[in-house]
Amino acid sequence: MSVTDIPKLGGMSRWEPNTRARLAGAALELYAERGFEQTTVAEIARRTGLTERTFFRHFADKREVLFGGSEVLSELLAAIIAEAPEDAAPIAIVAAALEEAGSRLTDREHSRKRQAVIDANPELQERELIKMATWSAVLVAGLRERGVPDTVANLSAEAGVAVFKVAVGRWLAEGGDETMPQLVRESFKGLRDVVDGSR
Amino acid sequence: MSVTDIPKLGGMSRWEPNTRARLAGAALELYAERGFEQTTVAEIARRTGLTERTFFRHFADKREVLFGGSEVLSELLAAIIAEAPEDAAPIAIVAAALEEAGSRLTDREHSRKRQAVIDANPELQERELIKMATWSAVLVAGLRERGVPDTVANLSAEAGVAVFKVAVGRWLAEGGDETMPQLVRESFKGLRDVVDGSR
Repeated sequence: MSVTDIPKLGGMSRWEPNTRARLAGAALELYAERGFEQTTVAEIARRTGLTERTFFRHFADKREVLFGGSEVLSELLAAIIAEAPEDAAPIAIVAAALEEAGSRLTDREHSRKRQAVIDANPELQERELIKMATWSAVLVAGLRERGVPDTVANLSAEAGVAVFKVAVGRWLAEGGDETMPQLVRESFKGLRDVVDGSR
Repeated sequence: MSVTDIPKLGGMSRWEPNTRARLAGAALELYAERGFEQTTVAEIARRTGLTERTFFRHFADKREVLFGGSEVLSELLAAIIAEAPEDAAPIAIVAAALEEAGSRLTDREHSRKRQAVIDANPELQERELIKMATWSAVLVAGLRERGVPDTVANLSAEAGVAVFKVAVGRWLAEGGDETMPQLVRESFKGLRDVVDGSR
């Protein structure tokens, strides 16, 4: 029995720096080996030498291993928008928020494994689309709160999420040293160049 | 028995101009009244005075009433991209394709009812997100086929779909006389203005 798994403790009563990461790593391995649907929480626990109880202390379910950071990121986006300088342009606010979100993506190998699992499962692809739609809604709400007109808020948010998707795709596909925030910035610049093409 | 419902005929053997529209109209009414999940094909048929067999001649299932045009539109987008002038900018090609797609949306009341049904049902919202993601993939594939680099193709397609979403939202929300193609054009212009804000 691991020290992270003492019965009757309830909740996370001590610092468990690696447990969550270990569980997530084992889960991704199993999702890749057997498929997401076929993997059980019992197997994830077994591979880490922990118990199912420990798993459920860190994740509500199997899917949360893949999408657990999404709500935290939504809150982060909302906070950055609320705190932006008064005279900042809506697209600049969105870009700042998404650069910050991008900075949370640092483990490319982990993210690649995650993406491979999602690519193999239509239900998870839907969940990923919903996640991005939720971010867009958070950005729109934050911009409206600042008095940005609806159409500008919608266009800024949707364009921003589009840029972020492209940046993530590049980050996962490319082998270079560019960080996610750099790729988000470059992709925003890419959007300006692309949009200029229509004039 | 309707002339459109002669047993043993098999397939659509005669011109049935209104049957599909009547079935779709009745289905939308029922989805709005009872909810999408709660509505049966038998009820849709009953309300139109037709049979279930006739319904299934026009629609594979209840959901296709809401998403039946999606594949045709994907083919339309692909065709427009393939036929665009050689020197056209990627974003201009995407804009032309989406204006044409927008021109297929002419019955605002029908589209509003459809949107209300979708807004009330998370599963249908997912399906709508998948539809837009499919369009984006079709646009990307068409641009790549023309030799457009990946990042430009992805940015043009994602930005285009973002613009289209905003245009549809405006078309459904506003009471004005602007057509969908006009709103698509205006929203592309809006994107340029929004993106300029970041310079």
